[in-house]
Amino acid sequence: MFNLKQIISSIADAGQKIFNRSDIKKNDINSILDLCDDLISNKGAAFGITVARDVTKLYQILSPENKLIFFKRINEKYKANFTEVDEAINLYKISPNEKTLANLFKASSGKRRELFTRMNMAPNGTSIIIELREDLLKVLKDNKDLKVLDDDLRYLFKGWFNPGFLKLEKITWDTKAAVLEKIIQYERVHQMKDMNELKRRLGEDRRFFSYFHPALEDEPIIFVQVALTKGLGKSIQELMKPSNDEKKNYDTATFYSISNCQEGLSRVTLGNFLIKRVVYEIQEELPHIKNFGTLSPLPGFVDWLSYVEEPKIKNILANIKNQDVSFLKSKDLKLGDSRIIENKEAITKLVAHYIVNEKNQQGLPVNDVSRFHLGNGAIVEDIVINANVSEQGYKRAFGVMVNYLYELKSIEKNHEDYMNNNKVIVSDKIKKYL
Amino acid sequence: MFNLKQIISSIADAGQKIFNRSDIKKNDINSILDLCDDLISNKGAAFGITVARDVTKLYQILSPENKLIFFKRINEKYKANFTEVDEAINLYKISPNEKTLANLFKASSGKRRELFTRMNMAPNGTSIIIELREDLLKVLKDNKDLKVLDDDLRYLFKGWFNPGFLKLEKITWDTKAAVLEKIIQYERVHQMKDMNELKRRLGEDRRFFSYFHPALEDEPIIFVQVALTKGLGKSIQELMKPSNDEKKNYDTATFYSISNCQEGLSRVTLGNFLIKRVVYEIQEELPHIKNFGTLSPLPGFVDWLSYVEEPKIKNILANIKNQDVSFLKSKDLKLGDSRIIENKEAITKLVAHYIVNEKNQQGLPVNDVSRFHLGNGAIVEDIVINANVSEQGYKRAFGVMVNYLYELKSIEKNHEDYMNNNKVIVSDKIKKYL
Amino acid sequence: MFNLKQIISSIADAGQKIFNRSDIKKNDINSILDLCDDLISNKGAAFGITVARDVTKLYQILSPENKLIFFKRINEKYKANFTEVDEAINLYKISPNEKTLANLFKASSGKRRELFTRMNMAPNGTSIIIELREDLLKVLKDNKDLKVLDDDLRYLFKGWFNPGFLKLEKITWDTKAAVLEKIIQYERVHQMKDMNELKRRLGEDRRFFSYFHPALEDEPIIFVQVALTKGLGKSIQELMKPSNDEKKNYDTATFYSISNCQEGLSRVTLGNFLIKRVVYEIQEELPHIKNFGTLSPLPGFVDWLSYVEEPKIKNILANIKNQDVSFLKSKDLKLGDSRIIENKEAITKLVAHYIVNEKNQQGLPVNDVSRFHLGNGAIVEDIVINANVSEQGYKRAFGVMVNYLYELKSIEKNHEDYMNNNKVIVSDKIKKYL
Amino acid sequence: MFNLKQIISSIADAGQKIFNRSDIKKNDINSILDLCDDLISNKGAAFGITVARDVTKLYQILSPENKLIFFKRINEKYKANFTEVDEAINLYKISPNEKTLANLFKASSGKRRELFTRMNMAPNGTSIIIELREDLLKVLKDNKDLKVLDDDLRYLFKGWFNPGFLKLEKITWDTKAAVLEKIIQYERVHQMKDMNELKRRLGEDRRFFSYFHPALEDEPIIFVQVALTKGLGKSIQELMKPSNDEKKNYDTATFYSISNCQEGLSRVTLGNFLIKRVVYEIQEELPHIKNFGTLSPLPGFVDWLSYVEEPKIKNILANIKNQDVSFLKSKDLKLGDSRIIENKEAITKLVAHYIVNEKNQQGLPVNDVSRFHLGNGAIVEDIVINANVSEQGYKRAFGVMVNYLYELKSIEKNHEDYMNNNKVIVSDKIKKYL
Repeated sequence: MFNLKQIISSIADAGQKIFNRSDIKKNDINSILDLCDDLISNKGAAFGITVARDVTKLYQILSPENKLIFFKRINEKYKANFTEVDEAINLYKISPNEKTLANLFKASSGKRRELFTRMNMAPNGTSIIIELREDLLKVLKDNKDLKVLDDDLRYLFKGWFNPGFLKLEKITWDTKAAVLEKIIQYERVHQMKDMNELKRRLGEDRRFFSYFHPALEDEPIIFVQVALTKGLGKSIQELMKPSNDEKKNYDTATFYSISNCQEGLSRVTLGNFLIKRVVYEIQEELPHIKNFGTLSPLPGFVDWLSYVEEPKIKNILANIKNQDVSFLKSKDLKLGDSRIIENKEAITKLVAHYIVNEKNQQGLPVNDVSRFHLGNGAIVEDIVINANVSEQGYKRAFGVMVNYLYELKSIEKNHEDYMNNNKVIVSDKIKKYL
Repeated sequence: MFNLKQIISSIADAGQKIFNRSDIKKNDINSILDLCDDLISNKGAAFGITVARDVTKLYQILSPENKLIFFKRINEKYKANFTEVDEAINLYKISPNEKTLANLFKASSGKRRELFTRMNMAPNGTSIIIELREDLLKVLKDNKDLKVLDDDLRYLFKGWFNPGFLKLEKITWDTKAAVLEKIIQYERVHQMKDMNELKRRLGEDRRFFSYFHPALEDEPIIFVQVALTKGLGKSIQELMKPSNDEKKNYDTATFYSISNCQEGLSRVTLGNFLIKRVVYEIQEELPHIKNFGTLSPLPGFVDWLSYVEEPKIKNILANIKNQDVSFLKSKDLKLGDSRIIENKEAITKLVAHYIVNEKNQQGLPVNDVSRFHLGNGAIVEDIVINANVSEQGYKRAFGVMVNYLYELKSIEKNHEDYMNNNKVIVSDKIKKYL
Repeated sequence: MFNLKQIISSIADAGQKIFNRSDIKKNDINSILDLCDDLISNKGAAFGITVARDVTKLYQILSPENKLIFFKRINEKYKANFTEVDEAINLYKISPNEKTLANLFKASSGKRRELFTRMNMAPNGTSIIIELREDLLKVLKDNKDLKVLDDDLRYLFKGWFNPGFLKLEKITWDTKAAVLEKIIQYERVHQMKDMNELKRRLGEDRRFFSYFHPALEDEPIIFVQVALTKGLGKSIQELMKPSNDEKKNYDTATFYSISNCQEGLSRVTLGNFLIKRVVYEIQEELPHIKNFGTLSPLPGFVDWLSYVEEPKIKNILANIKNQDVSFLKSKDLKLGDSRIIENKEAITKLVAHYIVNEKNQQGLPVNDVSRFHLGNGAIVEDIVINANVSEQGYKRAFGVMVNYLYELKSIEKNHEDYMNNNKVIVSDKIKKYL
Repeated sequence: MFNLKQIISSIADAGQKIFNRSDIKKNDINSILDLCDDLISNKGAAFGITVARDVTKLYQILSPENKLIFFKRINEKYKANFTEVDEAINLYKISPNEKTLANLFKASSGKRRELFTRMNMAPNGTSIIIELREDLLKVLKDNKDLKVLDDDLRYLFKGWFNPGFLKLEKITWDTKAAVLEKIIQYERVHQMKDMNELKRRLGEDRRFFSYFHPALEDEPIIFVQVALTKGLGKSIQELMKPSNDEKKNYDTATFYSISNCQEGLSRVTLGNFLIKRVVYEIQEELPHIKNFGTLSPLPGFVDWLSYVEEPKIKNILANIKNQDVSFLKSKDLKLGDSRIIENKEAITKLVAHYIVNEKNQQGLPVNDVSRFHLGNGAIVEDIVINANVSEQGYKRAFGVMVNYLYELKSIEKNHEDYMNNNKVIVSDKIKKYL
């Protein structure tokens, strides 16, 4: 044990490389757990930064197997003490008041959150804890017992990544290359192969915004890409074309991509704040832009169609004649298949049905992109055939994309209708297909 | 009620001055509480930034009386629901596991912390919530029931002001005047009357560091002032003198002032982290500086002496002859009284006794400056007569100050001795007086 | 001589302190002149930065006496070679063409400008050469032969301080204290005693702009101070009062102070560019500001009045009755003397005459502030009695100040009238007094 | 003429787009020349920025044909006035003193430099004048009369781009993409096809420095690329390889590329200052780097060899047996031809001869890269066969490159030997081949 104590470097060696010292056992569960004990103790309060640094460094060099063991051990070790909880319950039962309640709250809290809070004092602590959650998410499916550990992390992240702590930054061609490189890497919706493709998205008729967190320098958290258009954009391929110089009378901001960057922050929702904040920024900069909406993908539609029964399809398409969508299920569907256009009405009807009527257990749309925008107060404005004529676009949804419209004067009412009554609001245009 | 709803400005009017609108009732408890309800609801999740902005703006213009009412109302309204707590206890009792525990934790949490967390989304949210706590602290003494509300705020602040989120900045004559002006205003220990006095403290033989928080632009959180000296500094007046040009062979960093800037952050301790971080910075920049210590005030000593009984004093001074400290209690004590020097030994003995032997209920020194440095692992190095020859210095402690020494190789052991055994460690020099 | 060569540090010792070396003779004319020879030679082309650094460092530590000798020696040593000039004239005479002309130009140039150009390569070179000119200006009156050296410096400075190379910066309370301190020091027109007085001039109803040069970090070159007012400002004391909060409907920018900061840049006029640039900046930021003018001092008026003969005064005041300005010449004139107001008309007439009719040898007004603004295209708008009720104001001009008006639509025409026809344009109001 | 006058926008319309006005004749020689007259007149002194802006804008939209006419017209119009020169000569002849000399200098100066100096006041003036010189250089060969105009520009540029005015910046992956894109475009020596290739050159074992001028934001002026190596780098292909992680004990900085960015600044030499400055920077950052040298191309060698006669080659290769370099002249030489290696000795001998013995009219090496480095005080250290195994490398010099060594303790002496005695210094290794 003694050598373990020594690795708690005093301030004096704060600059030293701890791993040059012979008495450190790398990739050793007991070493790191002993340090965790120190961190959570009084010593952690006094020497927190140093101890936290050592814990995070040791964590990073654990093998994947040991990381799993580490998760299980801290999950158990720092959970609430059931005896203390029982005592707190007793005290509360005898005299249920704010004081006994506070005691109960504290007893039931456990120490896992406190452990992570103290680890956060380390240099790059926040970044390493996000990485830790990424590691945790990978093993979560096979280790359901760790879900409570993940809940604790997510609880903390919601506080740490409060929109009030985030900085919005405009990404331009004047942004440092190191950040742009990460942007390329993190873009998930419409991928870019190099800096040139990114440059087009930073042109004068485009806007690109990202949230950053002060503790994560040069690390985008979530970003959104906007095209200035005349009316809502109807084709991803059009949006990716080089800009021609003639000034168009742009009146619309089409949000065509929104990407979460950090796996470790999954389910810490920031997208809705980002969209609204960017709408505000664009209104300030470009007062002549009056309409705000999206050109969004339709993930899950292909899957859904593959499972849905023929009679149900017939039923949906009831009053349409001479339309046949069976080719969508065939393997010979190729990029640009002319039958897509020929059966435009039927496909639109199917998509409208899928978005509006197919619900999950909570009575909300099964499609999660829809849920996101509807929850924000947007409406389903349009369904666009051949909006994404690419392999990926066809694979995702036969090239179909959806315009959601953020009508500023009614988004709040829309939101309430959706939240309180599960009501999916669609434009008059779409109503015809339902 | 309807007009209330309207003040939840949609994103569209995010830039508008809400108080220009006729339907807003300023300084109205029900208006702000309704908005708090919105903020904590689903609407808050979707439109958080806007609602939070309105809540914080309305809060700021409440009258002091209404602020107190507001505190009492949210304290009650968003406390844990006792029925839900009882239910959660029952479920836990039936089956005490992680899931029922998490449920119990949630039920006993209440919603006050969540309310503040959401208010934090507002522009300048963090700053306004600190201000709110400042307001709360003022009324706390007469409204003990609000202590739990304050506990909730302090709980949140400990997370938000984690050292991992703070930025250390060197304050120099190149710092913007707006920040320097605040520094002058916040300095509590040895006050400055103008920029010139501050400039001296930013000279080449001085260091000045402050913690900042990213959400509080240009607002110092806590700062520390250091003099480079030959041996530990023994006189505040010497430290304030203009620097003469001759290069001295500095070997010591004397910390002579540490000030918390934000009343609203009181008891969110950051001082120990700051001191250790600054020791590290100085080591990096100036490797020839080998000693680190303080020249610290001795608040409370005059008070203590006024209450202590004569026999006890006699006892403390037992084996000293020809020394008389009774003049310290007389009203004719003047700045620079020669009897201070003449009775140096007796005064030193009294101070040593006061620091080391006078304990509070926890068995720790009654003097809180001592508690702070001892808790950090420092030792009592020296007691210095006439270290602060100023009206304030005499009023505080007859001009006496204390050197605490941070000996890097032993601070960790000192800390443990102090925390575990309530042991106050003093230098050999001081031992002689005990 | 050999040790001299050694002080030309090779790149290898570029970081060394040259003056720690035993072989350097400080304050030695021959040492520095030898280095100047090196600098102007091929060696200077190859090792310019190092040699230039040594020359400038040696220059700075010359005694005032040696500086004068240094000026005289380089003035002589690097002047044009008369033999070469004669030869160039001969060649040109034989065949007057672009080539022989270029040769003549080169021969008549001498090497003094080239010497300073190469010294400019040194770290802080520009700053040191400005300092050198400051030194030169001090001895110029008694050493008329050095005027040509000064002409060379001024010729260079006009190129280096081309407005295209200057950066305009807004000075605010967010400016670094080190710059604000210099601003206080450089303000000549209405001096400030401390940072608080400066802060008032940086308030919301004030604007403060300074030109900076990229090679002179944190060194203001020339700055101008503007008050936003309702109509042109009529009283310096009013402008210095703390701002009251009520929003006034400002429609005018009153320029109330413009100061050159660097003695060494005297007669390198930048003021006219600064004023016009600032007018442009204010128009961009505050489109509702429609009028631009000054509240300017009247230096020289007291002097002029002390010399002017009684009959001439009588003549100027011919058609005014019951007015007596003789008290202005008496020694008992005190701040706020009521006779100033009682004889307002007479004083205004005298000032109007002084500004408009008293001319120098070039036929332009003797008053140089008038020349500056008239040359910029402004007109004499108003003469204001008791505009500067301070000791300094009375000493300068019995408290009288002048409003010059920059009427944007006519400044160009005004300028041409003034430049081509020496015409002084005054407002209708002032015409009545002439 | 009147409408022309109007285009001199008063300050009032400084923000207006002058070309939206109907009275402006674009691409009209007389319009722009009239404005040039204004600029050089008193009006230019008072309204310089505005007039300069109009001149530069009009210049930029001249057709190439009109640009040539413009050059010829200003070359003539603003040249020295021969009558004035004659008068100045007469005055000087009568009394040759500093005053008449200054007058002669002024008369022979002409006004072309003054015209450009005033144009420089325009927004982006410096950048546009560099562009103007680029235009001028294109037509110079066919318009020898314009050489004096170019001389005037170059004279100005030497003052404006004095190393004292340039900022050295380290280029890294944190540099803004807009600058990196220009770097890629400007790199001439070893071209890069995309950002990824550039990224490799910004790695931890590389250094990349560029000079910038404050008036040319984000525009590199000249940059240099350095590889940290163990001994001098011997292969461009090795230097371009991805870095492997193992830490090598670098002891050498190999400068492998130096590129001038601005055509318009050609013959305004800054390269020697840059190299020495970068040597200094690297010494500061990496004190363990002891050797500084280059891996440089050998342009012109292929050409030279194609012209040189067979007997001369025989002579050069006199005492080498079994070596045959005739294949170098054949058309079947392919990348990686094994005969290059087989005849290594002969090729080295030829190159050594070419660098050291082939001189131009001034008695200096014909190879300009050699002249550059030798003039800086470097020596010819090594000749490296197959140092650049690429199409371009073979086309330039059969893959041969040269190491020049900057030995810090002797570069000054080397420089003097070279400048005074035309002496080319080579290493012992190379001596063997001569």
